[in-house]
Amino acid sequence: MNEEAVRSRIKLGRSFLTKFGDMEDLGEDYDTDQYLGKPQPPLCKAPMTDKAIDLPTDFSGLAVDNDFLHVINSRRSHRVYTQEPISLTQLSYLLWCTQGVQSVRGHAYATLRTVPSGGARHAFECYMAIMNVSGLEPGLYHYLPMKHRIEFLGRPDDMEGIVSASVCQQNWACKANVVFYYSCVFYRAEWRYGVWAHAPILMDSGHVTENLYLAATSIGMGGCAIAAVDPKTANDAFGVDGAEETVFYAMPVGTVKPEDRAEEDEFYAFVREQGL
Amino acid sequence: MNEEAVRSRIKLGRSFLTKFGDMEDLGEDYDTDQYLGKPQPPLCKAPMTDKAIDLPTDFSGLAVDNDFLHVINSRRSHRVYTQEPISLTQLSYLLWCTQGVQSVRGHAYATLRTVPSGGARHAFECYMAIMNVSGLEPGLYHYLPMKHRIEFLGRPDDMEGIVSASVCQQNWACKANVVFYYSCVFYRAEWRYGVWAHAPILMDSGHVTENLYLAATSIGMGGCAIAAVDPKTANDAFGVDGAEETVFYAMPVGTVKPEDRAEEDEFYAFVREQGL
Repeated sequence: MNEEAVRSRIKLGRSFLTKFGDMEDLGEDYDTDQYLGKPQPPLCKAPMTDKAIDLPTDFSGLAVDNDFLHVINSRRSHRVYTQEPISLTQLSYLLWCTQGVQSVRGHAYATLRTVPSGGARHAFECYMAIMNVSGLEPGLYHYLPMKHRIEFLGRPDDMEGIVSASVCQQNWACKANVVFYYSCVFYRAEWRYGVWAHAPILMDSGHVTENLYLAATSIGMGGCAIAAVDPKTANDAFGVDGAEETVFYAMPVGTVKPEDRAEEDEFYAFVREQGL
Repeated sequence: MNEEAVRSRIKLGRSFLTKFGDMEDLGEDYDTDQYLGKPQPPLCKAPMTDKAIDLPTDFSGLAVDNDFLHVINSRRSHRVYTQEPISLTQLSYLLWCTQGVQSVRGHAYATLRTVPSGGARHAFECYMAIMNVSGLEPGLYHYLPMKHRIEFLGRPDDMEGIVSASVCQQNWACKANVVFYYSCVFYRAEWRYGVWAHAPILMDSGHVTENLYLAATSIGMGGCAIAAVDPKTANDAFGVDGAEETVFYAMPVGTVKPEDRAEEDEFYAFVREQGL
């Protein structure tokens, strides 16, 4: 082990949380592109295909747990799924609660969404590996937030291998109904925040996945966010370049039942075995 | 402007989102302290004083919006507050929904909380500048999650100056009822995740503030998360060392009323003025 490299990486990582005050190396006249008057990038990615599918927006038929504190209190990580199909309305609800566009500020300055984002930059795209949604061909999809649609990107021969590799071989993900993948289109946030964009991007990504946890819980589903994403696998799968945009966060979500809690707890068998 | 420094910082920031795969410089035998069998750090910080205050845990008297989707749909950023006092129960509810400890896994392996955290590391401490809570002396406080208590740290002469400086002169924060400050105790996450700890810490912090947004919304309050924290001011105020622990994220929360939306929109006057 190269201990100096480890120490240096730890120090750099720590500094990443608090570098708003650190300006010296940038020059006194540093300003971000927004303040320099440079043109703003698009609010979201253009459709990648001409195969858009409308999503239902009437959620009145869903059995939503409307005890807010109960939703907060009962959210848990779920890696064990019952593999029953979900409806397109359930998928639509999860997408709406996490990236839904409610309005646009100005002509095209910002989207206001169901989730907060620093400066309303909303630098994310949402992709999906859909395994088990009634009426949808299993395959890879992309969310189109402006019209609340999804588009079909294709069905790879080895979906399961791709899903597994994309989350560093956490194979339980393959049994989810849907794996949500979040990419970041960097310049959307950098245009406004420049060199300070990246910590807020990560904070914003937590806003999104927390809404996904809660929305899933509210309709009796469950998931577990995964930071250990292999960006190359995920980027290749969704046709993302890995430079200006990269996938960096994922969350499998599936149908769950309380009886599976014991199996879920086996993910923590080491705590018992090691007497921690 | 030093353009090379800017480019280099942007490149580094981008790489921070996806460095799970980048191992070469660490040596092949790199492993984190948990896997090396090193002792685990405490699950949370010990009380800093002997002045703990019990918090009410009966939330049945609160007027909670129990339409889950309405809470999601109606959450907005709020920087304009009506400055009415809130109750200790309201404060307790906000703390419970964001950092409340529901159980402990193993003897002392992990806290399971009302908010998810990678590997259940929960590397955060919550501090508060309390301005306007019935029955509490205005001042600086620290949350004690294990017993759901708060402790009084003191009342600085220039509370308003400290609050303003801590969020880089965003003076609207001073009119909140409470400013929540989140610190990170780095080694709590580094023990398990080593050099990969820091991006997940930021993701986790977004889980916390999203619950704070939603919990506040659910009881008719509002807030706005602030990544632009001045860590030195905040660390000095709360007696945090800035090395092993640092404050890095803040969120003022206050009483709001719909009629103030027009005043709130003035924060975006530039969009109108610049025709964006």
